[in-house]
Amino acid sequence: MTTLKKIVENKIFITFITLVIIINAITLGLETSAEIKLEYGVFLSIIDKIALTIFTIELIVKILVYKLKFFKDGWNVFDFIIVVVSLIPASGPFSVLRAFRIFRTLRLLSIVPSMKRIIQAIFISIPGILSVGTIIVLIFYISSVLTTTFFGQNFYEWFGTIGNSMYTLFQIMTLESWSMGIVRPVMKEYPLAWIFFVPFILVTTFAILNLFIGIIVDAMQQISSDGKDVKKVSEEDMYKKIVSLEKQLKEIKNILNKK
Amino acid sequence: MTTLKKIVENKIFITFITLVIIINAITLGLETSAEIKLEYGVFLSIIDKIALTIFTIELIVKILVYKLKFFKDGWNVFDFIIVVVSLIPASGPFSVLRAFRIFRTLRLLSIVPSMKRIIQAIFISIPGILSVGTIIVLIFYISSVLTTTFFGQNFYEWFGTIGNSMYTLFQIMTLESWSMGIVRPVMKEYPLAWIFFVPFILVTTFAILNLFIGIIVDAMQQISSDGKDVKKVSEEDMYKKIVSLEKQLKEIKNILNKK
Amino acid sequence: MTTLKKIVENKIFITFITLVIIINAITLGLETSAEIKLEYGVFLSIIDKIALTIFTIELIVKILVYKLKFFKDGWNVFDFIIVVVSLIPASGPFSVLRAFRIFRTLRLLSIVPSMKRIIQAIFISIPGILSVGTIIVLIFYISSVLTTTFFGQNFYEWFGTIGNSMYTLFQIMTLESWSMGIVRPVMKEYPLAWIFFVPFILVTTFAILNLFIGIIVDAMQQISSDGKDVKKVSEEDMYKKIVSLEKQLKEIKNILNKK
Amino acid sequence: MTTLKKIVENKIFITFITLVIIINAITLGLETSAEIKLEYGVFLSIIDKIALTIFTIELIVKILVYKLKFFKDGWNVFDFIIVVVSLIPASGPFSVLRAFRIFRTLRLLSIVPSMKRIIQAIFISIPGILSVGTIIVLIFYISSVLTTTFFGQNFYEWFGTIGNSMYTLFQIMTLESWSMGIVRPVMKEYPLAWIFFVPFILVTTFAILNLFIGIIVDAMQQISSDGKDVKKVSEEDMYKKIVSLEKQLKEIKNILNKK
Repeated sequence: MTTLKKIVENKIFITFITLVIIINAITLGLETSAEIKLEYGVFLSIIDKIALTIFTIELIVKILVYKLKFFKDGWNVFDFIIVVVSLIPASGPFSVLRAFRIFRTLRLLSIVPSMKRIIQAIFISIPGILSVGTIIVLIFYISSVLTTTFFGQNFYEWFGTIGNSMYTLFQIMTLESWSMGIVRPVMKEYPLAWIFFVPFILVTTFAILNLFIGIIVDAMQQISSDGKDVKKVSEEDMYKKIVSLEKQLKEIKNILNKK
Repeated sequence: MTTLKKIVENKIFITFITLVIIINAITLGLETSAEIKLEYGVFLSIIDKIALTIFTIELIVKILVYKLKFFKDGWNVFDFIIVVVSLIPASGPFSVLRAFRIFRTLRLLSIVPSMKRIIQAIFISIPGILSVGTIIVLIFYISSVLTTTFFGQNFYEWFGTIGNSMYTLFQIMTLESWSMGIVRPVMKEYPLAWIFFVPFILVTTFAILNLFIGIIVDAMQQISSDGKDVKKVSEEDMYKKIVSLEKQLKEIKNILNKK
Repeated sequence: MTTLKKIVENKIFITFITLVIIINAITLGLETSAEIKLEYGVFLSIIDKIALTIFTIELIVKILVYKLKFFKDGWNVFDFIIVVVSLIPASGPFSVLRAFRIFRTLRLLSIVPSMKRIIQAIFISIPGILSVGTIIVLIFYISSVLTTTFFGQNFYEWFGTIGNSMYTLFQIMTLESWSMGIVRPVMKEYPLAWIFFVPFILVTTFAILNLFIGIIVDAMQQISSDGKDVKKVSEEDMYKKIVSLEKQLKEIKNILNKK
Repeated sequence: MTTLKKIVENKIFITFITLVIIINAITLGLETSAEIKLEYGVFLSIIDKIALTIFTIELIVKILVYKLKFFKDGWNVFDFIIVVVSLIPASGPFSVLRAFRIFRTLRLLSIVPSMKRIIQAIFISIPGILSVGTIIVLIFYISSVLTTTFFGQNFYEWFGTIGNSMYTLFQIMTLESWSMGIVRPVMKEYPLAWIFFVPFILVTTFAILNLFIGIIVDAMQQISSDGKDVKKVSEEDMYKKIVSLEKQLKEIKNILNKK
């Protein structure tokens, strides 16, 4: 077992798996070309099967080595799902899964340390975003109910249902063709429509700005507080020392005065 | 009265109100679908009336408990207006108010603490934005008078009135179709129009950038000064202590020398 | 003279001038409407003349009071130019100046203190931007020579001259219709055009990002160094005090040992 | 040799080379105009040859002065490549090189100190961007394989090959016409296409935001740590001094008590 563990945690083994992921990514990319598939299809399909076999063996070995602990690490669960989904025969109702094989390439995120760290950093910053995110969702929901009620009948494609409205409002929030494409045509029917859309743009843009600033300020605060914690302690220590010096001096004076 | 207060401030009560708001938001969303309204319209309308009744009772109880203090909190006034507007019979000239019922969902902002805090943070950052905001409004007003004078006759839809000009300039500021949609056609008539529009984009973009930077720097400064205030005091304290140590040492020397 | 100075620097006088600027801004805005001009044109024109007279008198009085010192302040020069340009009879070749009367409203920037401060802050941040700005201009010039050479013949309107190219590249930098409007049509003729345009977008966007980050970091550095300068001194002071304490203690020990 | 070195490093010589670069940039710009080329073509071509001669002599002298050390500085290699490429006769298969002569203007980046510093700062910030950049490339590759598989057949121009898909996804990431131009037409055929595109926009935008925040935070951290290193030392020094004071005081007490 320990030898297996040594192999699994060996740098060469990890590099080998990384290479297999990259080669598999390339063959999956090549398969999208109808010409290449016609000529080298069998060959590419063999490489794909070999890669999947290697991933499956790697997974089995890791589960044997780490046992239940294996599933405690989110990254392992991530790898596990990707490989298991690949093993489902992609035929009949599951034929769409064939296209999802490319998601195996995401295993690079869990195997390359520098990428792993960035993804973890992004996950850590998510809670801070959640409440601003909820407010944006709230604004979207209220706005989509309003636009569906007001503009739904005349502009079914854009605002016919809550779903259509949300998509259109998302497009407006990204500022894509919001005026020439959507609001100007709407204003031909409802000349006051700008009263809704201009504030909507201002509010959502400002909300996203706040989201953005929130992340920056959080990151700064961490840097700043990291430094301060260290210092506060040493300054408190120093202060205590000085106070003790004072006590000793008083004692000395007392001794001297008594004499 | 104190039992009523206990109920109103109870966590279960607040969760219950939150749930009613969410259920009401969903039913108002469902009502936008003509099909669902046809089949379940009566049912949805009953839920809506129950929700409004609950909100009204909640409001009355709160006013009874807190009396005039109730209106001192901006959030309460916000809730009060939302509920009272909902009570106006939405018929005849007020039929548009029916659509505004969805704004009740905004009560989530005042009832969920994490959202409340974000909205308050945004309100605090507003004064800092105001003066840059006024400058942007000024730029917009001057620019819209200029574009109306120069391009108003030939491009009535875009620059015919001050209002049209302001809307078009807002669109240009968001960079939406500014060139292919607006400025290139204008340049066909007035080849030098870019002399106005390119600087306009640079100036407004830069102004908004400054607004943005202002908010970040303000937030940073607060973090930075928060830390420094604490430290300055302790460093001053330390300095005073050291000076007092010096005095005592001098006294001791004097005592020793006199002997 | 001192009484005149007192009047000019009086708060009521400044408020009065501010009001005149705002009223004048409104009448100039109203004049853009052909209907209003037809009915109230004479009235608006009288108000305009009164406002200009007030500004001229204000200027003359200020020059009398401050004499040559008046022109040492950039803001005064700014006011002077605006008023003097307004006094040029707007007829014949200068008729375009009529439209520029609205620039008088910019005097608000020099009279309202909070706006004045922001404009000054923006001017201070300009030198830091200059060198990145020059690099962006350089990129633009090189790119426009390249696009004129390569695409000028087939796409005269977009890339026919250096001027046309610069305008189109500015549009592409703002990301407005860059692909559907410009690059996809160009790629129909020159399939490899993306080799130029995609890096151009990446480089200019990154350059502007750096400009932006530069301003933020500059502002932060100032905040950070402001604080540090104060502290460094006090820490050095403290250190000196402690060293002097040590000296005195040594003296005391010497005195004690000698006895 | 030392006199040659003095000349090469002389400020007047550098200013002269800078001027030659700028003049050459202007003549290359003028050459893009067919009319100017017809009338002054010979003259412009002579200036171009003179400029190239000056650059070549400068290069030879510098290599003579610094010998192999010359190639150790990246900036020199940059200059060397630009000049050598210019010397290749731009005829036959190399005629495209004529257009690249304008890249000589980039030598300004290596000769003007303030620009040199900015470019160096940008190069320093690149490693920090690399890992986020790799993740973005990964997202692009996976997404382009998916879109080619799903939408390639019906929308060949946009998603026919991996290359086409990558270009279109880049366009979508810049938010240019993403909805009205690409996603709405795609949704006419595949109504669920938004399930892919909306998250794609959110993820790539968020990734770029993180890239951006990363650069800012890195810059801040450097400022912050610069200051802290200095202080930590002095605080440690102070603490040591205070501890030594305490020791001395104990000694004094001992002396006094013994007496």
